Amino acid sequence: YDNIIRPGDNPDLTKERKAASFNLWKMQCFVHEGEDVVKRRKEILEFVENTREFDDPIPAEFLNREEIVDRGARKAKAMTDNADAIDGSDFFGEGLYFQSLVIGRELHSMSLHYGMFLPTIQGQTDDDQMDEWMGPTVGRAILGTFAQTEMGHGSNLTKLETTATYDPKTEEFVLHTPTLTATKWWPGGLGKSANVAVVMAQLYTNGVNKYQGPHPFFVPLRDHDTHMPLKGVTLGDIGPKFGINSNDNGFLIFDHYRIPRRNMFMRFSKVLPDGTYVAPPHAKLGFGTMVFVRSIMIKDQASQLGAAAVIGIRYSAVRRQGEINEGAGEVQVIDYRTQQFRLLPQLARAFAFLFAAYEIKTLYMLVTEQIGTGNSDMLPELHAVSSGLKSVVSWETAQGIEQLRLACGGHGYSRASAFPDIYTYAVGGCTYEGENIVMLLQVASQDSGKARIRSWKQCTDEDIIHDFEAVARRMIFSSYDRLKSFETTMTKKEAWNKCSIDLCKTARMHVKLYLVKVFLRRVSACEDAACKKVMHTLATLYAFDLISGAAGYFMKGGFMSELQSELVQSDLYEMLEVLRPESVALADSWDMSDLELRSVLGRRDGNVYPALLEWAKKSQLNKTEVLPTFEKYLGPMMKEGRAHL
Amino acid sequence: YDNIIRPGDNPDLTKERKAASFNLWKMQCFVHEGEDVVKRRKEILEFVENTREFDDPIPAEFLNREEIVDRGARKAKAMTDNADAIDGSDFFGEGLYFQSLVIGRELHSMSLHYGMFLPTIQGQTDDDQMDEWMGPTVGRAILGTFAQTEMGHGSNLTKLETTATYDPKTEEFVLHTPTLTATKWWPGGLGKSANVAVVMAQLYTNGVNKYQGPHPFFVPLRDHDTHMPLKGVTLGDIGPKFGINSNDNGFLIFDHYRIPRRNMFMRFSKVLPDGTYVAPPHAKLGFGTMVFVRSIMIKDQASQLGAAAVIGIRYSAVRRQGEINEGAGEVQVIDYRTQQFRLLPQLARAFAFLFAAYEIKTLYMLVTEQIGTGNSDMLPELHAVSSGLKSVVSWETAQGIEQLRLACGGHGYSRASAFPDIYTYAVGGCTYEGENIVMLLQVASQDSGKARIRSWKQCTDEDIIHDFEAVARRMIFSSYDRLKSFETTMTKKEAWNKCSIDLCKTARMHVKLYLVKVFLRRVSACEDAACKKVMHTLATLYAFDLISGAAGYFMKGGFMSELQSELVQSDLYEMLEVLRPESVALADSWDMSDLELRSVLGRRDGNVYPALLEWAKKSQLNKTEVLPTFEKYLGPMMKEGRAHL
Repeated sequence: YDNIIRPGDNPDLTKERKAASFNLWKMQCFVHEGEDVVKRRKEILEFVENTREFDDPIPAEFLNREEIVDRGARKAKAMTDNADAIDGSDFFGEGLYFQSLVIGRELHSMSLHYGMFLPTIQGQTDDDQMDEWMGPTVGRAILGTFAQTEMGHGSNLTKLETTATYDPKTEEFVLHTPTLTATKWWPGGLGKSANVAVVMAQLYTNGVNKYQGPHPFFVPLRDHDTHMPLKGVTLGDIGPKFGINSNDNGFLIFDHYRIPRRNMFMRFSKVLPDGTYVAPPHAKLGFGTMVFVRSIMIKDQASQLGAAAVIGIRYSAVRRQGEINEGAGEVQVIDYRTQQFRLLPQLARAFAFLFAAYEIKTLYMLVTEQIGTGNSDMLPELHAVSSGLKSVVSWETAQGIEQLRLACGGHGYSRASAFPDIYTYAVGGCTYEGENIVMLLQVASQDSGKARIRSWKQCTDEDIIHDFEAVARRMIFSSYDRLKSFETTMTKKEAWNKCSIDLCKTARMHVKLYLVKVFLRRVSACEDAACKKVMHTLATLYAFDLISGAAGYFMKGGFMSELQSELVQSDLYEMLEVLRPESVALADSWDMSDLELRSVLGRRDGNVYPALLEWAKKSQLNKTEVLPTFEKYLGPMMKEGRAHL
Repeated sequence: YDNIIRPGDNPDLTKERKAASFNLWKMQCFVHEGEDVVKRRKEILEFVENTREFDDPIPAEFLNREEIVDRGARKAKAMTDNADAIDGSDFFGEGLYFQSLVIGRELHSMSLHYGMFLPTIQGQTDDDQMDEWMGPTVGRAILGTFAQTEMGHGSNLTKLETTATYDPKTEEFVLHTPTLTATKWWPGGLGKSANVAVVMAQLYTNGVNKYQGPHPFFVPLRDHDTHMPLKGVTLGDIGPKFGINSNDNGFLIFDHYRIPRRNMFMRFSKVLPDGTYVAPPHAKLGFGTMVFVRSIMIKDQASQLGAAAVIGIRYSAVRRQGEINEGAGEVQVIDYRTQQFRLLPQLARAFAFLFAAYEIKTLYMLVTEQIGTGNSDMLPELHAVSSGLKSVVSWETAQGIEQLRLACGGHGYSRASAFPDIYTYAVGGCTYEGENIVMLLQVASQDSGKARIRSWKQCTDEDIIHDFEAVARRMIFSSYDRLKSFETTMTKKEAWNKCSIDLCKTARMHVKLYLVKVFLRRVSACEDAACKKVMHTLATLYAFDLISGAAGYFMKGGFMSELQSELVQSDLYEMLEVLRPESVALADSWDMSDLELRSVLGRRDGNVYPALLEWAKKSQLNKTEVLPTFEKYLGPMMKEGRAHL
């Protein structure tokens, strides 16, 4: 069915694929939540492959900044021109996949238009505003972005410095950047692409400089026809970054720039013509969208780590280096135990993250439904889990990608491998959030004896979860005790600061418990016995690897015995041995086409070396045999050197 | 003396600098091994700053691949034109520093010429060859590289595929690339710059295809005058990489390419005119140079991690975000305990690596001296320690840089911060070596009771070293026992493979023991009391952080008690508090000028925000207000959108 083995493929890869104990199609359906999804993936792939508009005459790796930005804009337009190809309501699934096929690991001129500008129009407008702005936004008559972060302040909304002062005489707001650090900084597409933005600014109205807090405004930035910045608006690109250079992240400075009163988003708060401020009836719940964005980010991160694992595993099956037994010929590097240890736990981790993303999305939909009926009980938990997950997933994804890259030796450093692009893209999602401990306390209940962990073949899912729960719980209580004892001699915030390292560690352990639980639960629901067996070993490997990495916490107070700890270690190695022959097929189960992977090392057919040479020939430096550097510097230098001999 | 505080500086930085308990100049002298060195650093800096040839009209971050290669060649020539500015015999010190000031975190067209081509000429030629090739090499009449690695094989010399077959009829070697994977791949400067290379090839001579093993050859690649590749030689650039894009790493294919018999390096082996192979009198010891290169790499890595720590610490003192106590105003982010925990252990680590690099260099010189008198007893230890160190240092450096980058929030992702460039440069040095366990066994002696660790204020250096030694030793013995038990049922190599994960962990622990020992020993020799006190706390922080990260190993068998383990944790936090006010001055003690740092976030004067805006204005995209993307894609799209409304 799947057509993964074809004539001409690298024979080592074919051998690996044939050796797997499970049916690939069934595994792909399990991984992607159903046959329909996998079928749709193949349809979308075919559409993209057959649409000439999406072609790249030169692979993105060889483009300079101007060219990569040009490509981003071209692709963004082509992609939205062809939006009918996918189910637009399913951004989590088809949308993300379509984008990754068309554009790759990049953002583009319109990312923020759809990702943040449009949702703000949907969520923050009153009826008249909705009528006025929704049409142009959806119809691509305007191109928007979302300008919140400033040079001096990131996530701390209350400390933003940009001001919007209401002038009742003209019924306008005056937007102003009072200090250098108030310069809007980072918004995607702001530098060169967008002609309008949602701007977050501190609202002053109602008497002399009366402060009303941060509010969003609808702000035109550039002329419709000429695209020149409007008077009072200074903007530009913020320069090259680690990755995601397709995007013109921008800066924005206002000089007493005036917009009409009705350009304030008025669904919740209002400013009346005379300047009277009308506060929102209740605190806003813009909260759900953020959780949804996080579940998308977690899925995206899982896919990036998955892609890195696919590349690492396939290449390790193709690459031969060194002999284990002398004279027996060079072995596939995946036969080295150390190599298995670098590859397989990362593969397991990628699945754990993917399944957690599904879970969060489902939870999000459930909570949204409940909120519709007035019940918001689960909101805090959803918030806690999703923010903790985002933090753990993004950092471990970044680390994992680098581990996998290094496992591919020198070639991993070349952009032909795709690793550099995967890393710099994925690590952009890495920020840190570690709060929510006190809330975690609500989840924690009483203590529970000794670790149950035993040989992985006898260990039940309940045993594993029991042990993680116990350790997470003990960490919560001990952090809480320390916090309380500090609070007797200092302010709550100071005590929090003093305990914050432990609090973060505790939060991370809780997230890991969640990941293990979700992974095991999902595997237990797998209907195909062969798939289930392999996946269960992988889930157990994931759990044991976590335990091994947190041995100090598990052994505390004699919870886990030394014997158990040693068992965990030797079991890990046994599981690597069992999973070794399934590795390539497990990689294939991600169903990542060459177009999605964009990696010479990770090609489906395993014909890595000829492709590497073809790729290299496209290098910018290979356009001529002799570079200008010879005539300018090196030639005269050597001529002089020869003359001196 | 040091002029580090100047009018107009960011007041937070000035406040921090004044609060330090030690004298900066004395600390810089301690860090750089003496007053003379620091004085020379300042002279060299002044020279580079005042030499217009070294200027960059546009910062390197804004250049495209062709431009960055051009810059590399220009700088390489300018640097070697001005080689008199430094003590050429001191590459470890002045050479590395000079290069970092002139070129930054990059390699260039001539890196391999000096780093590998020249040493081969020095070490592998017989007298006549030395006379012929040394002059042109030193006099820059030729530009060389070192072509060993191939597409299909990296470090495994015996499996290289390129052949050199001797033809006694013409007294020539025929160089040939028999397979695609035999293509030489990666050598620096090979693609476009070098016109000659040392080529490692499998020698066949003396009868029908008699194999003599890998040998080096002196091989002209390009025409002196036209720089065109010679007939039978195909070469080019291998394309863009994660970093180090100034360098034209290249590929090379031979098609029955002939070179004279005397182009084989003949100091050790020879081929006589009739094809008779003369084997070397004894196995070569090219070994010392490798160790020296490693000590340079370790120093370089330490400096990169140091630079990242300097940037992270200074920026964290300048950046204000959030309030610890409400209404008290936003605090410097370095006041957060979590932030201290992200910064200070990395700073400590950078010092540990730097001091280890000094140590290895000293050891290398000692061993070289001993070898001169016929004593090579210490060679194996030197080899083991230096290769283990390289592996641990490069991986932890890479991780540390990323931790520090993330600690700087969003701005760390911009190339203005320098973090992306530091990371991609430093991580190029990351390869993995974990062998040498059996030799470590020689170092290990009998067991020794319980952990001695106690409160950091009472803990002696001997206590700390005792505990590390005991844990490292126990790991060695347990790995060895497992290895031996496997060996009863399989070949030695298979057993090694099965145990290799544990063996690597053991090797790493041994390296950490070495790092802790060196750090403590060096601090104990510090002559200034104030410097010594602060550095000693930093060294203890380093040791305790390692213990905390390896708690599982330390607690095994009840070696370290739970109470001790908790003490380690709370002591860590106390040390962070003690070191907090010294942080900026400790960063300054690296004596890294703005020219060396190349970071907007890490500027000496702390005036980060205006510099960030200035930097961004140089973006390639800001050359025009309106990009071509508007006319080509976005403008027509929006026009159409407006028409549809």
